Amino acid sequence: MDEWRMKPIGHVRSPYTDVQQIPKGLGAQHAAEGTIEILPEFEAGLLDIEGFSHLLVLWVFHQVEGFELVVTPPADTRPHGVFATRAPWRPNPIALTVVELQGRAGSVLRIRGVDMLDGTPVLDIKPYTSNVPPEQLRRGWLADAEDRKARQ
Amino acid sequence: MDEWRMKPIGHVRSPYTDVQQIPKGLGAQHAAEGTIEILPEFEAGLLDIEGFSHLLVLWVFHQVEGFELVVTPPADTRPHGVFATRAPWRPNPIALTVVELQGRAGSVLRIRGVDMLDGTPVLDIKPYTSNVPPEQLRRGWLADAEDRKARQ
Repeated sequence: MDEWRMKPIGHVRSPYTDVQQIPKGLGAQHAAEGTIEILPEFEAGLLDIEGFSHLLVLWVFHQVEGFELVVTPPADTRPHGVFATRAPWRPNPIALTVVELQGRAGSVLRIRGVDMLDGTPVLDIKPYTSNVPPEQLRRGWLADAEDRKARQ
Repeated sequence: MDEWRMKPIGHVRSPYTDVQQIPKGLGAQHAAEGTIEILPEFEAGLLDIEGFSHLLVLWVFHQVEGFELVVTPPADTRPHGVFATRAPWRPNPIALTVVELQGRAGSVLRIRGVDMLDGTPVLDIKPYTSNVPPEQLRRGWLADAEDRKARQ
């Protein structure tokens, strides 16, 4: 059977020690600062990363067990398929956050835009290199929920 | 030891059967069309996904074994840390592609922007909901390589 084993390349240091502290829902701002401490054996993989202003960080919802296929996310009062949301109860508990890279000191990346718990395992980091043309972007139920909130 | 087991939620159907066929390097266009066939047991997780124009698809470099920490990517003649590239030889062989969602029929998503091999296992799908402000985006060695190419 197809199965892949993933191990941490490092861990997040964050001001958040409880999920209740992490801003969620419509208009949530992720301005918190923290670091990613890469394991020493992977530090060489960071060469030239400081040239990028933003990184895609893939990490594990390590405190979540099991999954739900239909969820009601914090940004809405209506249920949606889990693959149409960022909810943590996913078949593969992988999360993705775009963070701003503020600096690097050896194996430690200083980042802004943290929405992870302290101690979160990181699986991968990739450079953020391009946007979707804004005029082509449709945001489904999220845009609808924002519209409803704006009319309240 | 920390370790997570990931299983496919579905597979990509693509015109590419060999990695040599996939456009790579500076200016590569990813206009190919294909589908993602979600496994029947996960179809309910697609509810409302058709409202989004673009999806983040997380998939496995399933034909790659082992990893390299410093790589010379197709877009450059100079070596960079693997976490500053999209190269496939990563400690955790997870890939990320932004695709355009063209339609859905049950458990099948029609997509544009395929850069995966036919049969590629998909681990997760998330809605694409926001861009980095273009004036804040710095693209490191990739911008340098583009500049050098433009001056040739």
